[in-house]
Amino acid sequence: MTKAVVLLSGGLDSATALAWASKEQGWECYTIAFDYGQRHRIELKASEEIAKAFASKQHQVIAVDLQAIGGSSLTSDMDVPKDQAETTAIPSTYVPARNLIFLSLASAFAETVGANKLVIGANVVDYSGYPDCRPEFLDSFARTVALGTKAGVQGADFEVVAPLLTLNKSDIIKLGLSLGVDYAMTRSCYDPKDDGTPCGHCDSCHFRNQGFAELGRTDPLLSRSK
Amino acid sequence: MTKAVVLLSGGLDSATALAWASKEQGWECYTIAFDYGQRHRIELKASEEIAKAFASKQHQVIAVDLQAIGGSSLTSDMDVPKDQAETTAIPSTYVPARNLIFLSLASAFAETVGANKLVIGANVVDYSGYPDCRPEFLDSFARTVALGTKAGVQGADFEVVAPLLTLNKSDIIKLGLSLGVDYAMTRSCYDPKDDGTPCGHCDSCHFRNQGFAELGRTDPLLSRSK
Repeated sequence: MTKAVVLLSGGLDSATALAWASKEQGWECYTIAFDYGQRHRIELKASEEIAKAFASKQHQVIAVDLQAIGGSSLTSDMDVPKDQAETTAIPSTYVPARNLIFLSLASAFAETVGANKLVIGANVVDYSGYPDCRPEFLDSFARTVALGTKAGVQGADFEVVAPLLTLNKSDIIKLGLSLGVDYAMTRSCYDPKDDGTPCGHCDSCHFRNQGFAELGRTDPLLSRSK
Repeated sequence: MTKAVVLLSGGLDSATALAWASKEQGWECYTIAFDYGQRHRIELKASEEIAKAFASKQHQVIAVDLQAIGGSSLTSDMDVPKDQAETTAIPSTYVPARNLIFLSLASAFAETVGANKLVIGANVVDYSGYPDCRPEFLDSFARTVALGTKAGVQGADFEVVAPLLTLNKSDIIKLGLSLGVDYAMTRSCYDPKDDGTPCGHCDSCHFRNQGFAELGRTDPLLSRSK
């Protein structure tokens, strides 16, 4: 049976990616989340809930201190930008080399459980200029893992799979709904309020709200929060 | 001025790599060490001491929980192998994707401080079959970083430099001595005794002892420990 490690942040995209790997591909899924000093720590709880809902074989939370590195409004003392005009610049929410670090940790986990696929909810539409969501990067990473791990050297095939890469947010939500994702479980906000409800104004809230609006739906998380 | 991030484990190789980058190349060096649940935690203290000795601009220790991933005798409950016959097999001290993870974290640090070189003391002679010390891996990693980071996308040149890659242990020691490395500061043992002295029997001790023996020298660490 094909085994996959799914990067499960607890957000809308990663939940959909897990549903796709598990239900549509029928892969045996292992899930990994990262406790990296993010402001939006509520996503870690969401991640655990979603892992259970899709019968993750093993859900692993790895602590990695990206706060010590700094350089991003998601982990440091900078403010998260709100109600930004659209821009192609790399925003302050970019965490230096975050996907590189997360994929590296996921590939170690994959090696340990014998998985040869890494599934990531990366997306070129809403990545807002994050360079580590680009397909060139993901392919180059897969080649690097094949060269640098025991499994790869022993001939294992290795692939980074990004099923949502070119979908827009409403297509992602449509896909997830068709696969039984309960989006009330997922968290996207970069800067949630103290009670855990989304701020409604960061880039991530904007993309999410827009996605549901395009489908003529209300985000079930908003009803849950009320 | 060229800025470099040097991966400084506190071992003999990384200390020599730092000396090379700092003294021989004249680069402004930032150092990074990893608290990853290793048995040989004494190397973290060594790392700090060596960073100071070579005037590291900033020494950063990053906590990353590789123990949660498991799969290696260096972090889990397996025994560290002692007095092994030479073999080309990948040993149990191999930590899945360790250099990949460490280089990824170092590249985030590099991006934050504006460095475009990563210096690693990787070595093909004593890597004992660790796939993530191979030059193909290191080159592929550098390409991946260039594709996946803000600095890379903005055109920064990016290089992983492994100055010790093809040197044997005695050549490394000779190089380090010529650059003023005090090897009494460095720690190599995978499984030190409770008082911090080296076990003398793991692969790492064997390589180190052999290196000093070939130069007709005594390891200054052994005099320090007495």
